[in-house]
Amino acid sequence: MKIVEDGTVTSPQGFQAAAVASGLKKQKEGKRPLDLALVTAGHDCTAAGVFTQNVVAAAPVLLDRETLAANRTAIRAVLANAGNANACTGMAGEAAARGMQQNAALALHLRPEQVLILSTGVIGVPLPMPRVNAAIDAVARRLRPGHGHGDAAARAIMTTDTFPKQLAVQVELPGQGPVTIGGMAKGAGMIHPDMATMLAVLTTDAAVSAPLLQELLQSAVDLSFNRISVDGDTSTNDTVLLLANGSSGATVEAHDAGALAPFTQALTYLCTRLAQMIVRDGEGATKFVEIRVTGAPTRQGAVRVAQTIATSPLVKTALAGSDANWGRILAAAGRAGVPFAQEHTALWAGPLSPAEATTLPGDRETAGDMPPGFLQLVTRGTPTAYREAEAAAIFARDDIVLHLDLGAGSGTATVWTCDLTHGYVTINADYRS
Amino acid sequence: MKIVEDGTVTSPQGFQAAAVASGLKKQKEGKRPLDLALVTAGHDCTAAGVFTQNVVAAAPVLLDRETLAANRTAIRAVLANAGNANACTGMAGEAAARGMQQNAALALHLRPEQVLILSTGVIGVPLPMPRVNAAIDAVARRLRPGHGHGDAAARAIMTTDTFPKQLAVQVELPGQGPVTIGGMAKGAGMIHPDMATMLAVLTTDAAVSAPLLQELLQSAVDLSFNRISVDGDTSTNDTVLLLANGSSGATVEAHDAGALAPFTQALTYLCTRLAQMIVRDGEGATKFVEIRVTGAPTRQGAVRVAQTIATSPLVKTALAGSDANWGRILAAAGRAGVPFAQEHTALWAGPLSPAEATTLPGDRETAGDMPPGFLQLVTRGTPTAYREAEAAAIFARDDIVLHLDLGAGSGTATVWTCDLTHGYVTINADYRS
Repeated sequence: MKIVEDGTVTSPQGFQAAAVASGLKKQKEGKRPLDLALVTAGHDCTAAGVFTQNVVAAAPVLLDRETLAANRTAIRAVLANAGNANACTGMAGEAAARGMQQNAALALHLRPEQVLILSTGVIGVPLPMPRVNAAIDAVARRLRPGHGHGDAAARAIMTTDTFPKQLAVQVELPGQGPVTIGGMAKGAGMIHPDMATMLAVLTTDAAVSAPLLQELLQSAVDLSFNRISVDGDTSTNDTVLLLANGSSGATVEAHDAGALAPFTQALTYLCTRLAQMIVRDGEGATKFVEIRVTGAPTRQGAVRVAQTIATSPLVKTALAGSDANWGRILAAAGRAGVPFAQEHTALWAGPLSPAEATTLPGDRETAGDMPPGFLQLVTRGTPTAYREAEAAAIFARDDIVLHLDLGAGSGTATVWTCDLTHGYVTINADYRS
Repeated sequence: MKIVEDGTVTSPQGFQAAAVASGLKKQKEGKRPLDLALVTAGHDCTAAGVFTQNVVAAAPVLLDRETLAANRTAIRAVLANAGNANACTGMAGEAAARGMQQNAALALHLRPEQVLILSTGVIGVPLPMPRVNAAIDAVARRLRPGHGHGDAAARAIMTTDTFPKQLAVQVELPGQGPVTIGGMAKGAGMIHPDMATMLAVLTTDAAVSAPLLQELLQSAVDLSFNRISVDGDTSTNDTVLLLANGSSGATVEAHDAGALAPFTQALTYLCTRLAQMIVRDGEGATKFVEIRVTGAPTRQGAVRVAQTIATSPLVKTALAGSDANWGRILAAAGRAGVPFAQEHTALWAGPLSPAEATTLPGDRETAGDMPPGFLQLVTRGTPTAYREAEAAAIFARDDIVLHLDLGAGSGTATVWTCDLTHGYVTINADYRS
């Protein structure tokens, strides 16, 4: 597997993109920022989608679910806007979502059920449809392949993001040649100040049947976008879409392990890296923290413990203060609802090496030998005799690993989070007022 | 039911208390603060306890559970220290807890299994037993009835609390005369900077059988201490104890509704008020927020939705910013894992009147007519046409009610929380470093 230089959502063969400024986002320094993005494929794509579990789901989420239920084999376009989430907008919002889908289909000479749509931004505000429709016509005329247009699309979906999030990887399928997977994402630490929206659009030129594509996307999302958290708040709009157009001529099939394994790994890697970019851009975040839990009764239990630590305000404020406060970590683990015996637990902290940061977490979900520079803070549930200065040096770093072994089984999980700082409070307390 | 003037843990007949400065707490302005409290009864008490659900439970919690399993009918004393939680201290911690129990029993001429113990403070640090034992002898010699000694005990168990939390109520049992219930609690918004410890010791001069006492305490705790949250973090040490000595001559029995109803109401009221004091003393808190959820599919669902809103960092930072951000409230409700239809929801905000603040929440868990001053923010899942200035005036208040009706059943719940401020981050990020 290799990283594609300047990789983005248009890196796989046969995909085009464009972005325009419709005026949905507020002007910045007298200029209208890009806020409407379109990604299209020259051929029908199989498509997969993973959506927010929130009961309060936005109109575009409801419409995409309906569209994919009827058509998973002939998707041609994804239209995304930022600046307005079209959430909590009632019947008018439903009509607006259908309007976006229909107008994009008209402009692209497609059927409406071939278009998926995404929205992110403020909620409870009706979409100004005349403005949106004019922008749809404009963005459809600008479609082009290549990095520049993919990059523009990645910028157009940003809200409070401070940098665009995009990447592409290429992987060789034995006997079939290379396939490429690209993607763009947005989300400033899962939390837009007004809504916690995370969006991602992924593309690949491999041919993958719709049921397998859905299965592979769900697995990859479970290990990546579902393993990050900034504050535990999820959005009405969270969506990850994956389109496969088969333009590479290579096929991934369930019974062909030779192709399936490298494709799965590449897709998981891509999702993981995009997810990590979201955490690194977390609102007010000053630290990137990888939490590894091993020795849990089950994998699901490991995920629960890791996520409880990752969302604990007491742990996250301690991290902001560079405080090696192992007691808060153990106490958070203890309330996750997962059985373990305190006297069998062990905790380490260490630096996250740049090399490790780019490998897949699955590669190191064991509690064996710790990497160099790791310090054991807790042994059998009680504090180890370590030097405070040594711990302080680790917790003062920007990138930290916390490794908790529960000694209660073989379930493992890795999640990523950031610290809870004054910056977070400032951004979120002072947003609308 | 009436509030007892200067009411505290020694208000019920037959209870004594005392407190001393053992040196477990750090000196403040050259003085040793009180940090060891003892509450005793002249007669054997039935006793009930509700303990932390955290898997990582401190040594005193484990010992009290063991003690109550063997003896629920002849408890005579509760010994509590602040400054050291005796948590994550391994075998030495277990021995220290037993040592405290045994030494208190010796000093009071009791059997060890007649003494319950509580600890709160820093974790992972061994208790200095010679110092503790000397203090136990001293505190046993100072036992007295009356407000002053109860007040000293309430002050001794404080950690980051800014005020002592104590109250007593008296209620008339028909044909039997008055009984009194008193109590003291500690916890600065569920979160001691180093541990999220909430402790409460309750006393009553009613006679109540041990099984009924446990049932009544569990119910009252479920409606009070289990309905408050500052950050969702629970402690290794959380404990609520209730001792009943029968000194009033009045008896509460399961089949006697005439006595049971007023006693239950008084106990729930006492627990609710003590719990609310903890929220009002929340670290960095500037607002006290009552969250009422009605129309949930079940009562448990209503509790889940209310608690998810109460612990959402996005909701809590919006409250800190006096921002009427109804979108965050709906989005938090939507991720609680409770089924409802967005288009049937309604949301109001209003002031919490002083009169309401002292009634029982059960009295107003309906979505009927809203109290005066309440503003409807959301109708059928979409924003109501309200004036921003009107909403801003409500959210600028110190005491706020949020009332969410899910339109999905008859389950109701009320919880209390506070806002998430810069003060919280400062206290918790800068504590040990």
